[in-house]
Amino acid sequence: MKRGLFITFEGADGCGKTTQMGLLAQYLTSKGYDVLLTREPGGKGLGEKIREILLNYEGEVSDRCESFLFLADRAQNIDITVNPAIEQGKMVLCDRHIDSTVAYQGYGRGLDIDRINKLNMLATDGKKPDLTFVFDIDTETSMKRVGKDKDRMESAGLEFHNRVRQGYLELAKQEPERIKVVDATKSIEEIHAQVIKIINNYLSE
Amino acid sequence: MKRGLFITFEGADGCGKTTQMGLLAQYLTSKGYDVLLTREPGGKGLGEKIREILLNYEGEVSDRCESFLFLADRAQNIDITVNPAIEQGKMVLCDRHIDSTVAYQGYGRGLDIDRINKLNMLATDGKKPDLTFVFDIDTETSMKRVGKDKDRMESAGLEFHNRVRQGYLELAKQEPERIKVVDATKSIEEIHAQVIKIINNYLSE
Repeated sequence: MKRGLFITFEGADGCGKTTQMGLLAQYLTSKGYDVLLTREPGGKGLGEKIREILLNYEGEVSDRCESFLFLADRAQNIDITVNPAIEQGKMVLCDRHIDSTVAYQGYGRGLDIDRINKLNMLATDGKKPDLTFVFDIDTETSMKRVGKDKDRMESAGLEFHNRVRQGYLELAKQEPERIKVVDATKSIEEIHAQVIKIINNYLSE
Repeated sequence: MKRGLFITFEGADGCGKTTQMGLLAQYLTSKGYDVLLTREPGGKGLGEKIREILLNYEGEVSDRCESFLFLADRAQNIDITVNPAIEQGKMVLCDRHIDSTVAYQGYGRGLDIDRINKLNMLATDGKKPDLTFVFDIDTETSMKRVGKDKDRMESAGLEFHNRVRQGYLELAKQEPERIKVVDATKSIEEIHAQVIKIINNYLSE
């Protein structure tokens, strides 16, 4: 059976990536593909429990602890959910993956990016996504979109999120074949059209 | 202020290490030390939540996910609990630490020991305990002591636990200054006497 693809969706909270992931899922389904949707932190089962800890714990969480929790969640998602589905020929769409860790922990918080890359490769067993969308949007607009519904990650401030955004753009420069930047200030329909164009280019190659 | 010590307690479930940790805590308190007790997986707070996932999750947990959860717990315990207490001059006694990971994941399950060592050092920020007790006991006796109250870790079987035991003994050979093997088949009082002798030797050096 033909191997499926692993496609990840990256960008700031409020950039519209979850909406776009759903629209791409509909599109791929209409084209006859089997599609699996997942997310990090927190696919089904164990991932949900880890996600709950990461987003809702009220005490102090050390930076190193947080890094390892993200990696545990990632390893579980890759081993139990993503890889088996790809082997079965499914299109796997994942809301956040390795580039979130580099952008948020590395560029955002200033942790060592080489070290993050090494840990990411341990968590994914050395594999990267086939294709990654970065939904790029200015920080003020994304913060406004998120509004009052902020969790611990979103209350980190404007400067932090500006560094995260620059991190994503830097990553896209380093890996232009894998990482495609989409202008996320446009309308939902226009963004979806950009995504469809990129995916059809990829599939026709 | 004089720095405290970080002392870890290792061995099979049922080896009596938790009992011995409590007795050593009493002894050190009686000598005028401030003592802090902790454990891995699962010190207070966040550690408890991770411990709960590790011991009670009923679905499939990938090996790599499990490793990272242990490391997350360890990083949190070291950063939030252990290091601040040692800086305050306390004696910190910890039920399981880095050597459990090497013995159980490495020797027990056959995962790459060099890789485990590297990950351990990431989780502890490169630090090892000042002193480690390994409570050595034949596997059949420890399994009997544990009895019916088995969790996921304890239901792994006799051969697995024999490999873990040999792993601990191998570690003690490699680091005889740090790791002290205690005969845990003796009575509680006799084991306690061995522990006291070792700790007094260490403190007098």
